Amino acid sequence: MKRLTKAERQENLKERLDEDPFLIDRELAELFNVSIQTIRLDRLELGIPEVRERIKSVARQASSKVKSVQSEEIIGELIDIQLNDGGISILESTEELVLEKSKIVRGHHIFAQANSLAVAIIDADAALTGSAEVRYNRPVYVGERLVAKAKVEKIKGNRFYVKVETKINGESVFKGEFIIFSVKDDLMNREG
Amino acid sequence: MKRLTKAERQENLKERLDEDPFLIDRELAELFNVSIQTIRLDRLELGIPEVRERIKSVARQASSKVKSVQSEEIIGELIDIQLNDGGISILESTEELVLEKSKIVRGHHIFAQANSLAVAIIDADAALTGSAEVRYNRPVYVGERLVAKAKVEKIKGNRFYVKVETKINGESVFKGEFIIFSVKDDLMNREG
Repeated sequence: MKRLTKAERQENLKERLDEDPFLIDRELAELFNVSIQTIRLDRLELGIPEVRERIKSVARQASSKVKSVQSEEIIGELIDIQLNDGGISILESTEELVLEKSKIVRGHHIFAQANSLAVAIIDADAALTGSAEVRYNRPVYVGERLVAKAKVEKIKGNRFYVKVETKINGESVFKGEFIIFSVKDDLMNREG
Repeated sequence: MKRLTKAERQENLKERLDEDPFLIDRELAELFNVSIQTIRLDRLELGIPEVRERIKSVARQASSKVKSVQSEEIIGELIDIQLNDGGISILESTEELVLEKSKIVRGHHIFAQANSLAVAIIDADAALTGSAEVRYNRPVYVGERLVAKAKVEKIKGNRFYVKVETKINGESVFKGEFIIFSVKDDLMNREG
């Protein structure tokens, strides 16, 4: 994209963030061919909070719809949810999630994001994982942002077939197929 | 088992713990039909440390053999390992691992124990999960002790087919089949 005037850039910036509120400053800087500092100033002038705040605000709305788990028990930030249909969550690959030596995100964290999303979208008092088939397409490194998208493919009785695909900047890094069981609240407490 | 004399019981106790150092005091008390306090006194007189210490001592030995990950990055206590062959780890279901509402252990923790064990037994500088098929047989509750056993079934080039089964008191609660890739150290650092 060729360099725009400040007014043009700010208008464009606002539009882009309306479409995709999860673009980070670095991505916006590359997009508009300006420095990150310039983007920060643009956001300040436009009154647009930083990406973390934007995600939080969307996450608060989405989380309020979850029934099957406590929303704080979801791994990643839930940013969209339609019960028994689908949902999206975002997980930032922080240092705590990676192997020390290689800085590669541990596979079970990527699994946890997908699995907890698959459970969260179920419209039930509680839901448990029955089985899963997962595939890791490439290593994920510290700093990369994992966007997981879940879709309920089929419902048979209390059995939910959920597909999850996790992407980084549009590139698929993980795919999973989960079978989740919905459970009634009164069956959850074991006898004795 | 009928009530034994103290000397008989202590001798028996020593034998049982030689065979299975991970029996806890409660299990021993049931086995010998005495109080937990009696078992504690027996252990004190015999100079046998509590189960946590016994596990730690075995874990220290096993952990020193792991190459592909830092041993503290394994989920659960590694208690046995033969590189490229098999291994065993133990995970106590503490409050941190369970869903608040149901006290059921979250599926991804059980996955994490199995997955990190499957990676740990690989004889390589580093190892990454390629895919997994897992099945949960029943919910696991707070306080239950998960014993995961991994076995390398097949090796094809840098691809390791690892089966893991997790049991509680001998009852199978989880099965997983993992494909793990060994990676050379110099391939672990991404270009750029």
